[in-house]
Amino acid sequence: MPDFEKLKDPGVLEEVGTAILIAHGVPEDDARLVSHSLVMADLWGHQSHGIMRLSWYARRLKAGVTKSVTNITSVMDGGALAILDGHDGVGQVIANRAMRDALSRAKVHGVGVVAVRNSNHFGTAQYFTRMAAAEGCVALMTTNSSPSMAPWGGRKMAVGNNPWSISAPAGRHSPMVLDISNTIVARGKIHVAKQRNEPLPAGWALNSSGEPTIDPVEALSGLILPMAEHKGYAISTMIDVLSGVLTGSNFSTGVTGPHGAKERSGCGHLVIALDVERFMPLQEFGARMEQLVATLKATPVAPGYAEVFYPGEIEVVNESKNRQDGLMIPRTTLTELMKLASDVGINDLPVGPRQLN
Amino acid sequence: MPDFEKLKDPGVLEEVGTAILIAHGVPEDDARLVSHSLVMADLWGHQSHGIMRLSWYARRLKAGVTKSVTNITSVMDGGALAILDGHDGVGQVIANRAMRDALSRAKVHGVGVVAVRNSNHFGTAQYFTRMAAAEGCVALMTTNSSPSMAPWGGRKMAVGNNPWSISAPAGRHSPMVLDISNTIVARGKIHVAKQRNEPLPAGWALNSSGEPTIDPVEALSGLILPMAEHKGYAISTMIDVLSGVLTGSNFSTGVTGPHGAKERSGCGHLVIALDVERFMPLQEFGARMEQLVATLKATPVAPGYAEVFYPGEIEVVNESKNRQDGLMIPRTTLTELMKLASDVGINDLPVGPRQLN
Repeated sequence: MPDFEKLKDPGVLEEVGTAILIAHGVPEDDARLVSHSLVMADLWGHQSHGIMRLSWYARRLKAGVTKSVTNITSVMDGGALAILDGHDGVGQVIANRAMRDALSRAKVHGVGVVAVRNSNHFGTAQYFTRMAAAEGCVALMTTNSSPSMAPWGGRKMAVGNNPWSISAPAGRHSPMVLDISNTIVARGKIHVAKQRNEPLPAGWALNSSGEPTIDPVEALSGLILPMAEHKGYAISTMIDVLSGVLTGSNFSTGVTGPHGAKERSGCGHLVIALDVERFMPLQEFGARMEQLVATLKATPVAPGYAEVFYPGEIEVVNESKNRQDGLMIPRTTLTELMKLASDVGINDLPVGPRQLN
Repeated sequence: MPDFEKLKDPGVLEEVGTAILIAHGVPEDDARLVSHSLVMADLWGHQSHGIMRLSWYARRLKAGVTKSVTNITSVMDGGALAILDGHDGVGQVIANRAMRDALSRAKVHGVGVVAVRNSNHFGTAQYFTRMAAAEGCVALMTTNSSPSMAPWGGRKMAVGNNPWSISAPAGRHSPMVLDISNTIVARGKIHVAKQRNEPLPAGWALNSSGEPTIDPVEALSGLILPMAEHKGYAISTMIDVLSGVLTGSNFSTGVTGPHGAKERSGCGHLVIALDVERFMPLQEFGARMEQLVATLKATPVAPGYAEVFYPGEIEVVNESKNRQDGLMIPRTTLTELMKLASDVGINDLPVGPRQLN
């Protein structure tokens, strides 16, 4: 495919991303965190949430609807519970603080709950819940997002895809991880299809008149369907209650997505972390998780499948493969990245000419 | 339909259920709780989880795999966190205790987490999460169940449908409630289809050879598919981690369902309750929920739909309708109930002859 370039060292992507963010006024540590979180998504195989999002972030930083210097304040600090206000700062920086705070509280109280208001898009939720697993905690993280589905039975968007993730340590294995949004497909995957000029599979979306469409452009101005019909609608609405209504942030049609650059996001998050050691020794939990993994993976495969994966396993397989073989990045993403860099006066990129000429 | 009987007063069902359970050695208060929880499911329109399950419970009580007298012990009592052992007692009694305990802890600590091991089938999860909403709390409740789906890509059951529920108070409205299992359809609905001699919709199940089937009997010995493909598999597996692995209960293929009467269940539950008042005044939260409900319900309807419901609304609409018009109960369920009653020497039923002759 001439539309992709292979990057032998994905680390250079991270460096470029960091430099671009710094040029937009983001402090270095914060810039590094954001860039790392995006490249990790690329490595995990979730390119729709990868470095392609940097241009969106940059537009928002430039417009001032995402504050480049993140100023998090405490709204409430009460033992196992806290509420943070992100004041429209950088999503990853706020999410990172929320997760770290929830983990600290979990270590003291067994459970830590941190509610976040006035944040921004934070990349993939598993970037943060995997931190919890590494600290011996089981964690749930939710966020709300701009409307992308209609309530079940309706034909106008009023509910976000509202991603959520649960991670748990899994003994000698990489963590077991759920990380999904509640539309039948993530909006980012429709952006990827649009970028690649590829049609959508049938059943993903309706156009603005409520008719089925396979055109990504029509889908982006129409309706993405919820997963599992009414169940996905109900899940997504409850995730909005947890992330937006309960945290004191915006919700439903009040949330703006990362692809726009005109309005503050208003999105909120909720983190609940449980310290495994309060339930049983971490080693015992790990052994039980290994038993669960073994049971899942020992299942005879269905026709067309080579292997059964436990949740979150495929990301780590992808990461290892991409680090070894090189990461395939759409040429359009690299072009955008170079443009972004040159716009802020960065011309000595470690990536670009080699791949693009 | 001659296969249904209309009950003007659903309360008599509750009385009969209570009497049958008492005759099986269940203390009166516990019997009343179980019977009430089942009839509520009937009233909400979830007949698959209604009084038809009483015969399953009775078989298990008779076999001693569910203990009629529930003896709950505390495994760990640590502030916001607790672990309870249900010692194979009655599921509803254990779930009720767990929810009440989590709510008490939430009122003190802002969040209450109660893990339950060695429990039994507890009916519908929303029966308990709705209690939380009534107490001004947002609650999540999970349970694991016997294997009913294959891991994604596999062709042998290893993951339960693992129901979970989230409820939140909704101001002047009845609570907003999510209550689902993660198979594309609840196993109970396949039992109902079998009982009614009706074929299944296509896409619900595979037979034991892994081929699609619409025969409920084949489906019950085959595979029910997860909702939303791999996403439903991942959700259900993480619910098993929360309910079984983390609580110290059984998990995956180690859990026995309520339709069998040979083995203890080994299922576990997790309850997480959050006190709304710690986040904002309950009245403010209610106003925000009313705004969310208004937004959802104001959505223009799609062709074929008369109204958009918020999650959990339809149950309350059904309850009100069933109380007013009478509750339709399958004749087979009433016959089973009369048989069950006469088996334990109850012959002066307030229900039965009038409906059955």
